[in-house]
Amino acid sequence: MKFEIHAKDGSARTGIIKTLRGSIGTPAFMPVGTQATVKAMSPEELVLAGADIILSNTYHLYLRPGHEIISRIGGLHKFMHWQKPILTDSGGFQVYSLSSLRKICEDGVEFRSHLDGSLHFIGPEKAMEIQTALGSDIAMAFDECTPYPAEYDYALNSLELTTRWAGRCKEYLRKSEGENNAALFGIVQGGMYKDLREKSLLGLLEMDFEGYAVGGLSVGEPKNEMYDVIRFIAPKMPDEKPRYLMGVGDLLDMLEAVEQGFDMFDCVMPTRNARNGTLFTSLGRVSIKRTEFKSDPDPLDPQCGCYTCRNYSRAYLRHLFLAREILSMRLNTIHNLHFYLHFMEGMREAIKAGGFGQFKKKWQAVFVQNS
Amino acid sequence: MKFEIHAKDGSARTGIIKTLRGSIGTPAFMPVGTQATVKAMSPEELVLAGADIILSNTYHLYLRPGHEIISRIGGLHKFMHWQKPILTDSGGFQVYSLSSLRKICEDGVEFRSHLDGSLHFIGPEKAMEIQTALGSDIAMAFDECTPYPAEYDYALNSLELTTRWAGRCKEYLRKSEGENNAALFGIVQGGMYKDLREKSLLGLLEMDFEGYAVGGLSVGEPKNEMYDVIRFIAPKMPDEKPRYLMGVGDLLDMLEAVEQGFDMFDCVMPTRNARNGTLFTSLGRVSIKRTEFKSDPDPLDPQCGCYTCRNYSRAYLRHLFLAREILSMRLNTIHNLHFYLHFMEGMREAIKAGGFGQFKKKWQAVFVQNS
Repeated sequence: MKFEIHAKDGSARTGIIKTLRGSIGTPAFMPVGTQATVKAMSPEELVLAGADIILSNTYHLYLRPGHEIISRIGGLHKFMHWQKPILTDSGGFQVYSLSSLRKICEDGVEFRSHLDGSLHFIGPEKAMEIQTALGSDIAMAFDECTPYPAEYDYALNSLELTTRWAGRCKEYLRKSEGENNAALFGIVQGGMYKDLREKSLLGLLEMDFEGYAVGGLSVGEPKNEMYDVIRFIAPKMPDEKPRYLMGVGDLLDMLEAVEQGFDMFDCVMPTRNARNGTLFTSLGRVSIKRTEFKSDPDPLDPQCGCYTCRNYSRAYLRHLFLAREILSMRLNTIHNLHFYLHFMEGMREAIKAGGFGQFKKKWQAVFVQNS
Repeated sequence: MKFEIHAKDGSARTGIIKTLRGSIGTPAFMPVGTQATVKAMSPEELVLAGADIILSNTYHLYLRPGHEIISRIGGLHKFMHWQKPILTDSGGFQVYSLSSLRKICEDGVEFRSHLDGSLHFIGPEKAMEIQTALGSDIAMAFDECTPYPAEYDYALNSLELTTRWAGRCKEYLRKSEGENNAALFGIVQGGMYKDLREKSLLGLLEMDFEGYAVGGLSVGEPKNEMYDVIRFIAPKMPDEKPRYLMGVGDLLDMLEAVEQGFDMFDCVMPTRNARNGTLFTSLGRVSIKRTEFKSDPDPLDPQCGCYTCRNYSRAYLRHLFLAREILSMRLNTIHNLHFYLHFMEGMREAIKAGGFGQFKKKWQAVFVQNS
């Protein structure tokens, strides 16, 4: 993996991440394909929407269908018919948010499946084994996602464990070199404590990862606390490596984080909202249920060139949503991902043109009023 | 509308129905797009699967979003982004099967919506008004679908009402000529009584419709009773007009009906079964849930050229189904419709080659063992 920065505007930067499976323009948004599919979409539709990379979830694929099965089919790319890069998360976040009866020890986490209650154990080596079996292009080190709120001592112990685990992940990949080509990113934890965030970052920097992620944000804390951490940590992260803000995908949050120098994002927001009938447009958020759309022949967003806006009326989209048709989820998801991925493209162009500040103000005006 | 017969093999025939919106190869299967969408499919995917025509439901579209709204958007074709022909049913079948508190009188039927309990009235003129507003290419006369079982007298009175209603439908279209180009088909009723079926047909023939449908079959009666009616009525129907067997779409039933001279079919079987994980293949019916598919890298049907079989493994299809992913319904529906529409193409070729008998035997062997 190589990372090239092509232009900067203040701390905001644009460039590309080069992988064996293709290049990723940054700032990049990664649609989430939890169960080896981005919900409601075909891989071809993802490409048309402008996706350079998707994220898939280690925890989910480990439980179902199982990473050995995916490996036997030829890896996750072949399994799901997606040729471009895939970033896999470490499984850490879902172990904490979805499973029950978690027991954390030095070696890893014992937990029960949210699907059938069966008992499992994932530690750093297992997380690497799974991500290797999947054939991930960018793998994440196994971490404990510090909950919010957390006491200082809890956050300290947790980040130190995450740092030791990151070292074991790196060691696992070093020993198995040649078997896979995944780049490995370390994850900064430390809760809302700035000194702990810095301590976490410094611990990871000593080990030299190919990219650095910030985890444990957008987990229920107030926006200003999240923004404080983003503003504090971004300038301390190495300039020449990709900076990934995990699980953050609100449009205004991404504007803020890109301004601080972040490069990568993932979130279920565009896809989940689409299925619930909330659409992102050049005029702001829109609920497709609105009565005023009942016989509206216009496209959802007259400024949008996506398949949905080129071929269907607001009246039809409203009808499909109220009738709970599968095509509703498809057309809404196509639009929202197109909007998100073109929003990122807009950021990249604005940074190149030295107009990121204006870009940010324009879209803040659209979405602040409206959210 | 024009109907040309290009070849015959016994009573089986193949040809084309020409409409202003395109030609339909017969024997034809019409995928069902109840609520202005064939569930899980885009119009482009329907074309790729080989659909020449779809069916949409007057009753459903009248209730939601309402035919006036569809008319204001520019008609059903524009509303749903489908350029090829659409046949609309009369609404009769759903009034009987879905609505509550039906009151039938000479003028039509009063009923309550299955969606919100609101009170409605549809008679022959209203059914034509709705189908005209939708911009249907082939409209069906408003009928009473005789239930099964029915007493002789009930079936007699019912078919006579259906015949009078058919006359009023024709009259409505005659008066509004120029406003629409829909071809009108009459519907033969009469329950399981052969003399009543013949009486019904003769009544319709006097009025000269552009095609003749047989309704009130596949409504719960034993197969042999259905086959008896099919064998009895088909040779009595005019040779030079399309013969449409409504609501029948079991593969073996269609083989039987085509052998007797039927030309058109519709059924939710391929689409509904797809969503439930039952797939039609060259080896028979397959449940995609089967444990043996767990790590099977092969395509669902090695003889199939559909998008699903070209790009995905049985293991992936099984995984998507168990994970209840939307893409499961999409890929399964693409495959089942492709199978159905190529099955019809196979029939057309077999009839041209004078080998329909062999074709029928071959597929009977595949699906009888297996169903």
